[in-house]
Amino acid sequence: MKIALAQLNYHIGNFEDNSEKIIRHLSLAKSKGADLVVFSELSVTGYYPHDLLERKEFIARAEQAVNKIAKECSGIAAIIGAPVINQSERGKKLFNSALFLADGKVQSTHHKSLLPTYDVFDEYRHFEPNKEFRVISYNGVRLAITVCEDLWDEQPTKNEFGRDKLYQNSPLEELSKQNPDIVINISASPFSYNQENWRKNILVKKAQAYNLPIVYVNQVGAQTELIFDGGSVYINGKGEIIKELAYFTEDFMIIDAGNPGSISIQPKTGYIEKIHDALVLGIHDYFAKMDFKSATLGLSGGIDSAVTLVLAARALGPENIRVLLMPSKFSSAHSVNDARELAENLGVRYDIVNIQDVVDQFNKGLSPIFEGLPHDVTEENIQARARGVYVMALSNKFESILLNTTNKSECAVGYGTLYGDMNGGLAVLADVYKTDVFKMSRFMNKDGEIIPENTIIKPPSAELKPGQKDTDSLPEYDDLDQILFKYIELNQTPDEIIRDGFQEQVVNKVIRMVNINEYKRFQAPPVLRISSKAFGFGRKMPLVAKY
Amino acid sequence: MKIALAQLNYHIGNFEDNSEKIIRHLSLAKSKGADLVVFSELSVTGYYPHDLLERKEFIARAEQAVNKIAKECSGIAAIIGAPVINQSERGKKLFNSALFLADGKVQSTHHKSLLPTYDVFDEYRHFEPNKEFRVISYNGVRLAITVCEDLWDEQPTKNEFGRDKLYQNSPLEELSKQNPDIVINISASPFSYNQENWRKNILVKKAQAYNLPIVYVNQVGAQTELIFDGGSVYINGKGEIIKELAYFTEDFMIIDAGNPGSISIQPKTGYIEKIHDALVLGIHDYFAKMDFKSATLGLSGGIDSAVTLVLAARALGPENIRVLLMPSKFSSAHSVNDARELAENLGVRYDIVNIQDVVDQFNKGLSPIFEGLPHDVTEENIQARARGVYVMALSNKFESILLNTTNKSECAVGYGTLYGDMNGGLAVLADVYKTDVFKMSRFMNKDGEIIPENTIIKPPSAELKPGQKDTDSLPEYDDLDQILFKYIELNQTPDEIIRDGFQEQVVNKVIRMVNINEYKRFQAPPVLRISSKAFGFGRKMPLVAKY
Repeated sequence: MKIALAQLNYHIGNFEDNSEKIIRHLSLAKSKGADLVVFSELSVTGYYPHDLLERKEFIARAEQAVNKIAKECSGIAAIIGAPVINQSERGKKLFNSALFLADGKVQSTHHKSLLPTYDVFDEYRHFEPNKEFRVISYNGVRLAITVCEDLWDEQPTKNEFGRDKLYQNSPLEELSKQNPDIVINISASPFSYNQENWRKNILVKKAQAYNLPIVYVNQVGAQTELIFDGGSVYINGKGEIIKELAYFTEDFMIIDAGNPGSISIQPKTGYIEKIHDALVLGIHDYFAKMDFKSATLGLSGGIDSAVTLVLAARALGPENIRVLLMPSKFSSAHSVNDARELAENLGVRYDIVNIQDVVDQFNKGLSPIFEGLPHDVTEENIQARARGVYVMALSNKFESILLNTTNKSECAVGYGTLYGDMNGGLAVLADVYKTDVFKMSRFMNKDGEIIPENTIIKPPSAELKPGQKDTDSLPEYDDLDQILFKYIELNQTPDEIIRDGFQEQVVNKVIRMVNINEYKRFQAPPVLRISSKAFGFGRKMPLVAKY
Repeated sequence: MKIALAQLNYHIGNFEDNSEKIIRHLSLAKSKGADLVVFSELSVTGYYPHDLLERKEFIARAEQAVNKIAKECSGIAAIIGAPVINQSERGKKLFNSALFLADGKVQSTHHKSLLPTYDVFDEYRHFEPNKEFRVISYNGVRLAITVCEDLWDEQPTKNEFGRDKLYQNSPLEELSKQNPDIVINISASPFSYNQENWRKNILVKKAQAYNLPIVYVNQVGAQTELIFDGGSVYINGKGEIIKELAYFTEDFMIIDAGNPGSISIQPKTGYIEKIHDALVLGIHDYFAKMDFKSATLGLSGGIDSAVTLVLAARALGPENIRVLLMPSKFSSAHSVNDARELAENLGVRYDIVNIQDVVDQFNKGLSPIFEGLPHDVTEENIQARARGVYVMALSNKFESILLNTTNKSECAVGYGTLYGDMNGGLAVLADVYKTDVFKMSRFMNKDGEIIPENTIIKPPSAELKPGQKDTDSLPEYDDLDQILFKYIELNQTPDEIIRDGFQEQVVNKVIRMVNINEYKRFQAPPVLRISSKAFGFGRKMPLVAKY
């Protein structure tokens, strides 16, 4: 049987485009002699529609799209993903289902059993878990059709307090009793640089354990925070990855399941390159799917805004970006020159506006109220917020989305001004630690200097008071980032981190900064997620709490 | 058996204070001859700890607190709520449990079966549902111990697309087979003005269906967005509410379950008064639990900031509030006078700073960049953002939390400036429709004018351009609020709303405004929730979506 793997980029709620894309690939597969095309999880709606799943008109439109696609399935079969109404009296209103389409209609539905409800996943909010398992036969081949997490009954554990068996049952164990010939898994599995091998390992182990080939089709493309990386695979019954589709782009491949041919997998790349590609896709799709063309940002001469700008220029084209340089009396001459040089290297239009006049005016307006009180962080924040007003004015006037340039280290410890440099429609680097931002700048310069060397080598500074350096109030980034990774991604306790060789005082200070700044992150822009634990809806901490 | 109902206000993660409070009420109950004290759901940790439940040190501290409380249980028994580790190999790491304590230790644990995972509830994220049911005997009385949602296997439905039987089983049906004498339900059920009767109706129906008395103990107090209203009850086996504890405040009562005496319930109040009391508690607890003393806000002379200020003054005391009047050239003389009069009526300190100088300075700085371009919303936003900078400077300098004054109608249609009037640490009115804000102003003035009459009767305006009125770009608030309520709270489709008698064009415009402003609400402050569907984490819509 010839199976086409259709790894496509969907748009949530855009039923016209999604079904047009599915139908176009059905035709393509048919013209190339495929028997079956496999699309990804919730391909009809895009993953994940969140509470749109609670709206009647949304579900009705999904049903219409399914029927429209089914009508196109003559002479070829397809497996698509869509929400299906739970007809039983009890349980949640919907199932998250794989639909087997052939001969112009839905032949069978296969509901998802294991509903991820952790980190960024929220599926039990909307879906009832499946309890019935059925292998179907098509052209004499017995198909075990599963949806994403259904193969993850045994999870790799992230930490001591994690669980490897999150669920009460194993769908593949149930399906294997019905003697399938092949496992189909339709998926929507987002990228995270420190977990991407888990996914393949789990598939390989399942193929080996049941001696069954697996066709795994993942979604590709970004949906606000989540970046789906594709990398769909065909794995044989020995657990060998025979075919691997592209990463971070749409791809399509027809495989003869009986005779899949020689091994063809993607070239290995480093984690910084992967993060780079993920972020470029993340920016691109945010703009494309929001129907926005142009971006703006404040270019400071520092490393974060420089790396953000390069990523944006690659995602959107330099001609679609316009940046603002906003020096104050505390800005070094270097900063303006470095920023200007970068903009010129990229061919990005820039304007310069000095913020000193408005800052002075704010301070003058406040002087009767603040009379006799010492300068403090208030005056630093006024500078950051004056910049925020200027760059938002550009954003408003030219209908450009403001890109936020905060990195994960800053975001974690609250080193940023709310309604100032924390502004933006999308936070590009807020899941990338500062030390990785530096690595990415080197990666960007590997074929010639784009980011001025001075931007990379000078000591990081917010330039909000004379001679200020980040290390005045923060530990060195090498230490800081390791402590943060252990606390946030690895979920280690303070004691465990101290036992790993970090100073107790430093660890406690860092963790306290993370904890007390939850209120700032609550109002931060959406964060492009590239790690296993990003700030945002995958990490929900109470604001009013003592810990 | 004498049962004490301890309806208390907990603080998430504050194990010292929570356990001290529990132990203090144990002593009180014992001194008054009670046999058993019932506390509320997750009383040891406070409800809801969110992802703190994933941290090992948090669970360890909860266990220590449980053991400390258990040691105090001699000569008296207690039922408390705490997370308990799931010892089985499969499933989530924790149970959400009621613990029966007596003779100095934990005698039995009763895990929650029905885990609400909808709207603001997220319990399946952290907890494994219970499948085993056991009635226990204490002093010859057979107790069926349940946790909150366990009695909600049949839900009232909010709309056609809702479900009345969200779950596969009925814990009370199971427990009733073991011949209990009384049902204990420990709860953490937040207030919403349009659902509060459901809760009592469900309890009454359950008591009637099983002919069993119910002791229901709810948490009281606010945890950021969620406001728990208390209102604990004792219901007899006929379904009569015999005793009802106070709303919006801690309360404590001892009931002789065999002889509960005459009916004693709380006086009826109108929904505006309930919302008023909920918001005062919400503000008070946010500050108390964050350890903040003072608040600030921008007082415009309009109705929203006026009502917010009165609520804040009642919650925190007028001496702890300092407001800023920030007129521009578009502000009417009335506005400043009305604002000043209100501040004086309340005894709240105010300062006046004219924003025109900074606004002019921003426009001057931008003039080379905006040359030849017409004025538009950009210039309106600069005014709102200049105010945002001023009032945040006050907030920073005096360590006062900025209260956001946006109402739900504005919040819904995106009638507000991000990083301007959308600033704040807590959004006080963002779940209150404009028409209810007006009603609340009348309620506040019922014993004499506090809010100037002119503030109430003048047409609402943002005063960002000459002669501007809200109705220039929005429908009349009477219509707008009804359409919004149908779309947001009732989850009606556009067609259904049109069939209810609203103009198609208006309905479509309003719904489109709600949908396209998801990105603004993403960065809004936490919203005090008083309805069945507030903006915030109980309503998750994708940003990148077409609908």
